[in-house]
Amino acid sequence: ISEHNNEFIRTEMEELFPADITNILYELEGEEAHYLVTLLDTKLAAEIIVNLDPDDRKKFLKNFTSQQIAEYVDLLDSDDAVDILNEQPVNVREEVIALVSDREQARFIIDLLHYDEDCAGGLMQKELVKINVKQSVTECVEEIRRQAEDVENVYSVYVVDDEGTLLGRASLKKIILAKRGSKIADIFTDDIVSVKTTATGEEVADIMQKYDLDAVPVVNIQGRLLGRITIDDVVDFITEQAHEDVQAMAGISEDVEEDDSVWKLVRSRLPWLLIGMTGSFLAAKIIGVFDGEVARTPALAAFIPLIGSTGGNVGIQSSALIVQSLADKSGIDTSLTERLKKVLLVSLLNGLIAATFAFLGTLVLEHENTISLVMSLSIFSIVMLASFMGTITPLVLNQFDINPAVASGPFITTTNDLLGYGVYFLIVYMLI
Amino acid sequence: ISEHNNEFIRTEMEELFPADITNILYELEGEEAHYLVTLLDTKLAAEIIVNLDPDDRKKFLKNFTSQQIAEYVDLLDSDDAVDILNEQPVNVREEVIALVSDREQARFIIDLLHYDEDCAGGLMQKELVKINVKQSVTECVEEIRRQAEDVENVYSVYVVDDEGTLLGRASLKKIILAKRGSKIADIFTDDIVSVKTTATGEEVADIMQKYDLDAVPVVNIQGRLLGRITIDDVVDFITEQAHEDVQAMAGISEDVEEDDSVWKLVRSRLPWLLIGMTGSFLAAKIIGVFDGEVARTPALAAFIPLIGSTGGNVGIQSSALIVQSLADKSGIDTSLTERLKKVLLVSLLNGLIAATFAFLGTLVLEHENTISLVMSLSIFSIVMLASFMGTITPLVLNQFDINPAVASGPFITTTNDLLGYGVYFLIVYMLI
Repeated sequence: ISEHNNEFIRTEMEELFPADITNILYELEGEEAHYLVTLLDTKLAAEIIVNLDPDDRKKFLKNFTSQQIAEYVDLLDSDDAVDILNEQPVNVREEVIALVSDREQARFIIDLLHYDEDCAGGLMQKELVKINVKQSVTECVEEIRRQAEDVENVYSVYVVDDEGTLLGRASLKKIILAKRGSKIADIFTDDIVSVKTTATGEEVADIMQKYDLDAVPVVNIQGRLLGRITIDDVVDFITEQAHEDVQAMAGISEDVEEDDSVWKLVRSRLPWLLIGMTGSFLAAKIIGVFDGEVARTPALAAFIPLIGSTGGNVGIQSSALIVQSLADKSGIDTSLTERLKKVLLVSLLNGLIAATFAFLGTLVLEHENTISLVMSLSIFSIVMLASFMGTITPLVLNQFDINPAVASGPFITTTNDLLGYGVYFLIVYMLI
Repeated sequence: ISEHNNEFIRTEMEELFPADITNILYELEGEEAHYLVTLLDTKLAAEIIVNLDPDDRKKFLKNFTSQQIAEYVDLLDSDDAVDILNEQPVNVREEVIALVSDREQARFIIDLLHYDEDCAGGLMQKELVKINVKQSVTECVEEIRRQAEDVENVYSVYVVDDEGTLLGRASLKKIILAKRGSKIADIFTDDIVSVKTTATGEEVADIMQKYDLDAVPVVNIQGRLLGRITIDDVVDFITEQAHEDVQAMAGISEDVEEDDSVWKLVRSRLPWLLIGMTGSFLAAKIIGVFDGEVARTPALAAFIPLIGSTGGNVGIQSSALIVQSLADKSGIDTSLTERLKKVLLVSLLNGLIAATFAFLGTLVLEHENTISLVMSLSIFSIVMLASFMGTITPLVLNQFDINPAVASGPFITTTNDLLGYGVYFLIVYMLI
């Protein structure tokens, strides 16, 4: 198609949604994609660029001049504009901001660049419709007309006082339905949930989910209205968060996707792979101490996998549950002692069942009472220990502000393996 | 507080958000909670009940008569009402529907009960504002006034023809800003994304995220407008989905939470725990065959953990990546051969590095060239095999409509363990 039939491409593209055109871009080579985008209406092109994956976007925008980027940035919501600029090298960033022709937009962007990307300040956009509490509904509609051109999704109008302090909100529905001549003061609701600029992304997501909000206003410490966060940005944040947790559990140490470069994929897997191997070398050292026992009773070696995998599985099960209830602070905070009491009870029952199973399994395989006894005692201790470790590790990591999901991955398996082999050979040493 | 100071409690509660009162309920005993809710305004009570966790809600509503439940159901959005009714036994459900005084609401509920809970039909609500394309903006505002009383979040008005076929939508912003006397036909946009009643929840979530929608209309096969799905319900769906994936990866076989009963927690962990143990007994059988080798060279036993954990880690890393790109169908579908080619390359590099590491580590521990050679060859083969298995298993499960995340858990670890021990002792058998 890309044989420079400009008019045809342009009209074809204008019938599609921006998100669909973005998908087409992924199928094209760099050159062709660049050509296609420059062909389109600037507003449309800007929206397509927003939809790109950050890594791809960074690469893609290398082909554009600062002037071109500034034209796109000019037309975007301030939060999206800042995301794009944050990906650029500092000199490009400065250049682009200087070239943005809408000075209000440039001011918005400079304001937002101060905030950390993952906090409420970094997620918010400056575009919103606000109205002074003293105004009338008719003035308000005028105000919407004036402000709404730049604001994409208007759900509510935010009501502020003379100092810009947030007082409440009036939904568009209420404004449409208001009687002529009524005052904003009569129709707005002061039941409003807002977040501070310093709130974390998780906190914002929790609040928006808890109260079923479509947008939440962001205020500074004095309660002055600075911006708003819309639900679509939070949905993206939530899925990203879920991705990161899964990768942490899988022992992948960078945020990668299947279509990243081979080298990046290799690099993201190596650290935990090698750490896991180091753990196993330590295990080899422990087992090596019992060389004599193993030579005399080779059956002991055959049950090493049972010890390792049971400890690993139990540890991951326990930690996944804790990670989940940490992520999901729905208000009820279980105390540490209560948590441990419950874990103790659950693992006691699981431990007894697993130990019985181990006793019978070993008996069938080896017809040897002593080995069966050793195995069931070991499995019981390991289930108890691994549950305890799996519960305590994410709680400790969480205290130190490390993503507790890391603890549900190779980390817990490696520690539990080592503990397990220690316990196993201790019991072997005592009983055989 | 609950010493029957009714007036005081009522005014206190009315100042809180429903979601906050729900949290208070969790702290109270069944009796007290029931008393508190009956005290409140019916509308407020209904919203509080919606916020409860399904399991808790089912228990909680046992204390209420069908008449009381019907009063709450009457005031709720139709999708929430149906969720509550679906949790009730059939006879209660029928009784409640018969007692709902708003006959339109009762009809909505009966309609929605037909759909499967996890598809678009089950997620949608019947409440929405629709308008005939022939009407004027002034008539439309009248229509909003009439319909909007029952509809909570109005983002857009849906535009239909005489047959009720969806033609497009007009945002409230556009309606407010429209000139007097303009026709709906002049201001509405026909660029509209809709979903069929049969679309899965995942499809709905993907579409809403891709196009950044706050609500999506649901149509039947003829394109007739039946309802809409709002973003807050989809956010809940997305988090639930993420939860399920994490639990599948952790080998927990029921949807449990930390505050479930001890017995439920035990039961949810046992299946994979025992399956994992059975796998290890098979491994013991394999290793048992090489009793003689192990007795002669006990160092071979010491490296069993290295074999097991490396295979497990690599398998989980590979499968987690595939599961993620399966979940995240952003349009680009990698072909199977391309996928495998890339996996091959990545695992080749990782395998070489891991094998070198294994060679050196073994050399340091054992000062033995043959064992080092055995270990590096085994680790290389296992990294290759485990990557392949980790890639192919979720793809196969996905083909059979099984949640591929299951493959990233104990399943892949167990299979890879067995494969690994097989490969290891085969190499031992050939070289030692």
